[in-house]
Amino acid sequence: MEDCIFCKIIAGEIPSARVHEDETAIVFLDINQASKGHLLIVPRQHTADFHELEGDAAAHMGRLALEWAGVAMRAVESEGYNLLLNNRKVAGQEVMHAHLHIIPRWTGDGYRMTPIPTRIADGAELQETAALIRGQR
Amino acid sequence: MEDCIFCKIIAGEIPSARVHEDETAIVFLDINQASKGHLLIVPRQHTADFHELEGDAAAHMGRLALEWAGVAMRAVESEGYNLLLNNRKVAGQEVMHAHLHIIPRWTGDGYRMTPIPTRIADGAELQETAALIRGQR
Repeated sequence: MEDCIFCKIIAGEIPSARVHEDETAIVFLDINQASKGHLLIVPRQHTADFHELEGDAAAHMGRLALEWAGVAMRAVESEGYNLLLNNRKVAGQEVMHAHLHIIPRWTGDGYRMTPIPTRIADGAELQETAALIRGQR
Repeated sequence: MEDCIFCKIIAGEIPSARVHEDETAIVFLDINQASKGHLLIVPRQHTADFHELEGDAAAHMGRLALEWAGVAMRAVESEGYNLLLNNRKVAGQEVMHAHLHIIPRWTGDGYRMTPIPTRIADGAELQETAALIRGQR
């Protein structure tokens, strides 16, 4: 897509620090390094919404996440990682081309994911919501 | 695994509000609802670390994330969603059986993912880190 920065990176029109590329996706370091080794998995297919990708592309992203999360963790000797995908502005998406973050983590790394304000739902409510979701499949 | 709450849910020993199950994974509502429709994708294979799963399981999780993120978004009429996987305690993992969160999002939902304290890395540093990561493959 013409004005998409990730499409330009995929096309090689903008430089990137790649660790992997194949016919379905590329993996490169986010220029905004949340932590050392912070990678992005970006499918070649341009869609803003992850859920509009072809199923095969999403499956491939899962495989790449498995491979490169482990590799990155060993390479930068992190203590763990987060996989994060922000879909739409409300969720923090900044580039409107679906992408998955791999963010290596260390104790005291200053990267705070504020605790989710969760609440324990009761069983009846959960079953009602589950039925609602199944009904939309 | 004997003391794993997700293995017990998979085995049906602990109830859950399921929306999907197949031979590789199950999808159910997190009892700690960060937001309405907050789902978990849990592979049947028990490993604490996502990157220790079989590649096929990770690929299947990618496909399920694509399908159920879209379905959940329509069902609860959310404005977006996050996919989040916390790997190891340092990253917020609470149940030591790999799992992926689908968290529907709304404007003003009170769910804050504190902005990542990113910094723009320079090209030379990124290339050095990329080489380090590629070398660990």
